[in-house]
Amino acid sequence: MTTSREVRLKSRPKGMPKLENFEVASVDLAAPGPGEVQVKNLFMSVDPYMRGRMYDRPSYVPPFQIGEPLQGGAVGEVVASNDPSLKAGDIVQSMLGWREAFNAPAAGVQKIDTHGLPPQAFLGVAGMPGLTAYVGLLKIAALKEGDVVFVSAAAGAVGSVVCQIAKLKGATVVGSAGGKEKCDFLREIGVDHVIDYKAVPNLTKALMEAAPKGIDVYFENVGGEHLEAALEAAKPFARFAMCGMISQYNATEPPKGPSNIMYVVGKRLRIEGFIVSDHFDQLPAFLKDMSEWIGSGKIVWRETVDNGVDAAPGAFLKLFKGENLGKMLVKLS
Amino acid sequence: MTTSREVRLKSRPKGMPKLENFEVASVDLAAPGPGEVQVKNLFMSVDPYMRGRMYDRPSYVPPFQIGEPLQGGAVGEVVASNDPSLKAGDIVQSMLGWREAFNAPAAGVQKIDTHGLPPQAFLGVAGMPGLTAYVGLLKIAALKEGDVVFVSAAAGAVGSVVCQIAKLKGATVVGSAGGKEKCDFLREIGVDHVIDYKAVPNLTKALMEAAPKGIDVYFENVGGEHLEAALEAAKPFARFAMCGMISQYNATEPPKGPSNIMYVVGKRLRIEGFIVSDHFDQLPAFLKDMSEWIGSGKIVWRETVDNGVDAAPGAFLKLFKGENLGKMLVKLS
Repeated sequence: MTTSREVRLKSRPKGMPKLENFEVASVDLAAPGPGEVQVKNLFMSVDPYMRGRMYDRPSYVPPFQIGEPLQGGAVGEVVASNDPSLKAGDIVQSMLGWREAFNAPAAGVQKIDTHGLPPQAFLGVAGMPGLTAYVGLLKIAALKEGDVVFVSAAAGAVGSVVCQIAKLKGATVVGSAGGKEKCDFLREIGVDHVIDYKAVPNLTKALMEAAPKGIDVYFENVGGEHLEAALEAAKPFARFAMCGMISQYNATEPPKGPSNIMYVVGKRLRIEGFIVSDHFDQLPAFLKDMSEWIGSGKIVWRETVDNGVDAAPGAFLKLFKGENLGKMLVKLS
Repeated sequence: MTTSREVRLKSRPKGMPKLENFEVASVDLAAPGPGEVQVKNLFMSVDPYMRGRMYDRPSYVPPFQIGEPLQGGAVGEVVASNDPSLKAGDIVQSMLGWREAFNAPAAGVQKIDTHGLPPQAFLGVAGMPGLTAYVGLLKIAALKEGDVVFVSAAAGAVGSVVCQIAKLKGATVVGSAGGKEKCDFLREIGVDHVIDYKAVPNLTKALMEAAPKGIDVYFENVGGEHLEAALEAAKPFARFAMCGMISQYNATEPPKGPSNIMYVVGKRLRIEGFIVSDHFDQLPAFLKDMSEWIGSGKIVWRETVDNGVDAAPGAFLKLFKGENLGKMLVKLS
């Protein structure tokens, strides 16, 4: 018998989540049943979209339930297998994060060939956030060589990959992030114009100075003032890939919408939302391209790692305070 | 020597335009010079987009200049020709409305074969508003049979054509308009669910009741509360054809943006603006389809007609008070 500690939703957050919305509990794991494996998680992913699942409302994924363990991406190691398809020592990916270990049907986890990458890269640059950047920039925004691309939350797990793909495809990149450390990182990865949105008095003005002829593409991770600035700076026929709006996720009142949304007509903008799970058909192309880009040093990444399952709620809160640089992870063993 | 009276922009409107922003003046017309024609306008078009040209700001068309005659669509009759391509009695279309008569190079006007339609139909159902409806619904929104389509300003020159094309293509149509006369007209042209937005306490609620499973397409002419309602009612992957936002054109403060714009991500919406002049390649297909639809009685239209060039400023103001049913025209002779 193994014991696993797991994070449960104790109460639904109102506004900014607090530590007391979560609780950590222990469960006993029997040996895996027929067709099952037992997995010890190595790393779990902490992602902004999870905030949406903490509301009790219909959405594209069902809400988390009070008293039940949370779910999220994780990579782990098979420690016992009762199925011929997997053996102890295999590295697997699952949506069963927020816990130290679990039993699951073998078909419920995916074996990873890490190609020499650290397994947690499959939660970031080589995983869902990387694919999100790839699909959003190349398919939704239909990036073209020579485009001027504006990326918000540019130092995040998704944003930093967007910036680097845009650069290697021949675009000019304007990246926005908060604070010196993130802005330094953006300069390191070749972002042409870096905006520290916490330090500029007027984001729209800063963007117009960075891109005086306007932007062709906006990769939206933030919402609010960033969206208004992008609408203002958009060239005719600009394309907006709408990936998320982290500034709005904890709103307790209806947030202020973009007052200049009317530009969508006169500038003939295309504003398109997307969810990565609708685009898994792009996964083979993504993995091929990404392993090449990583191999040749064209794409690098950063991680912010907290330790132990007890740290997971705090790591989640960091996302909304902008305290992570690159991918936010919790190391579980 | 002929005299023509014309409407000039006297001052730039602040907020809702007023009659004193315009003045009517007389000009003398010489006989047409070599290669020129003289045209007596029969009807001039009054369109909401003209409000944008009264601001002194860069846009997709240059601003109107103070003291100069306004421009807009018109149909007229050639009264004298100094060019072999046109002869007296020919019916022509031009962008030289807001005046009784003009001289212009023959190449600056387009001869119309009216196919038995009244010439002013080429300012409405068979002209730019009709093409706008056609392009916006079929190309931008990519209408599919079975779609539920929400149309704002549904009794207007564009909206009423959108409703009818949607119906004949097998869609279910929810149309919003203000007042009994317009709503009765929408019922006459087969709109499935009519919302009198001036009479309902909550537009979003009214739309959700009319389309309980949500909408697949939104054709945007109005903005503001209508856009918020459409975002709320949108099904996943809904497409918004953004044609105009008449509720915002006279704003003196930055208007309130849609507080629920975040739905664009979770519902994967595509919100796309368009301007009809980018889509003139669709004109032959449009004219072919439209003449068939008019011929078979599948598309009907209404006009609101004021008389004489002095009435033009007042007719323009009516657009923003919602006092026109169907196409707003001024009959000039």
